[in-house]
Amino acid sequence: MPHIALPEGLQGIRAALAFRPETARPLNELVEVLLHAPNSLSPGERELIATYVSSRNDCYFCQTMHGAIAAASLNDDEDIVRQVKSDFMGAEISSKLKALLTIAGKVQMGGKHVTEQDAANARAAGATDVEIHDAVLIAAAFCMFNRYVDGLATWQPVDDELYRERGKKVAREGYVQMSREYLPPEIPAHQEQ
Amino acid sequence: MPHIALPEGLQGIRAALAFRPETARPLNELVEVLLHAPNSLSPGERELIATYVSSRNDCYFCQTMHGAIAAASLNDDEDIVRQVKSDFMGAEISSKLKALLTIAGKVQMGGKHVTEQDAANARAAGATDVEIHDAVLIAAAFCMFNRYVDGLATWQPVDDELYRERGKKVAREGYVQMSREYLPPEIPAHQEQ
Repeated sequence: MPHIALPEGLQGIRAALAFRPETARPLNELVEVLLHAPNSLSPGERELIATYVSSRNDCYFCQTMHGAIAAASLNDDEDIVRQVKSDFMGAEISSKLKALLTIAGKVQMGGKHVTEQDAANARAAGATDVEIHDAVLIAAAFCMFNRYVDGLATWQPVDDELYRERGKKVAREGYVQMSREYLPPEIPAHQEQ
Repeated sequence: MPHIALPEGLQGIRAALAFRPETARPLNELVEVLLHAPNSLSPGERELIATYVSSRNDCYFCQTMHGAIAAASLNDDEDIVRQVKSDFMGAEISSKLKALLTIAGKVQMGGKHVTEQDAANARAAGATDVEIHDAVLIAAAFCMFNRYVDGLATWQPVDDELYRERGKKVAREGYVQMSREYLPPEIPAHQEQ
């Protein structure tokens, strides 16, 4: 049971966002920019970073939800998601993404774990400074989202099909668009302002 | 030296925010709502939670900056900031804030550490559900900000007076207002839209 009186029937972070629309808006906008907006890293690559960090933080909701969005963004390839979570160095992904996942894994433990060599390795594998920045911030942001979702003990139903369907919808429509579902109408989604 | 080519002369998170204005906007808006906007928890209390978590994450920039903002918000009481960082249970703060700091400390370790009893204790000490929510999200957010600041190896000058002066300014003007200093003019601060 959640630690506070969250709205019922909304799973994971959705209940927390609906409870506090004032913080939901910047949180949705942040994740929209980081994971869905146009970027030299594809949405699938960025969702894999989010999924990997959420897996390391043992957050069921976030790793399942973002794993489903990642798969939906990568031609429904659920195997690649499983590979990245269990052994990304052996996964069929680019050496650039492997270098960025290495950085993300260190950020998950704490920012000071990231070394100059980690950044040099990412650059040698073709990463730009913006891509390294985004990998660090995606990893850091999921250290927030994972703690938010589990720190309130949100309801996290175990139902692969539910996450799969929602993953396809988020992959298609993005985060800010989806937030219209639960944000009250008097707080318009950001684009409408 | 920072791991990527951040703008020079801006300390800590300010360089990272200036490097990527697209993510700076929601990050600034989040911290404005969480720490500065009207709330039943005072800005000083919320800044103490941010400072405590940043101290546990060993982030020099964030604990010094938010410690300075906390002190500026609490009649320039720097002792209370030191007390909260070293032993908040012995500090001269309310039992409600102690219960919220207990929750924040557990969120710092990972969301699943927070128990139903922790929430019950906070409520028994007078905390509302929104205050418990905000304590969880402030703690989670600083697990992001700390990793962002240190994961990029930002420049963090050691100069108490610099943080003290800036702390007073942020305590007075808030975060969104301050962001005008480094966000390029073509990206207006949120209130101006």
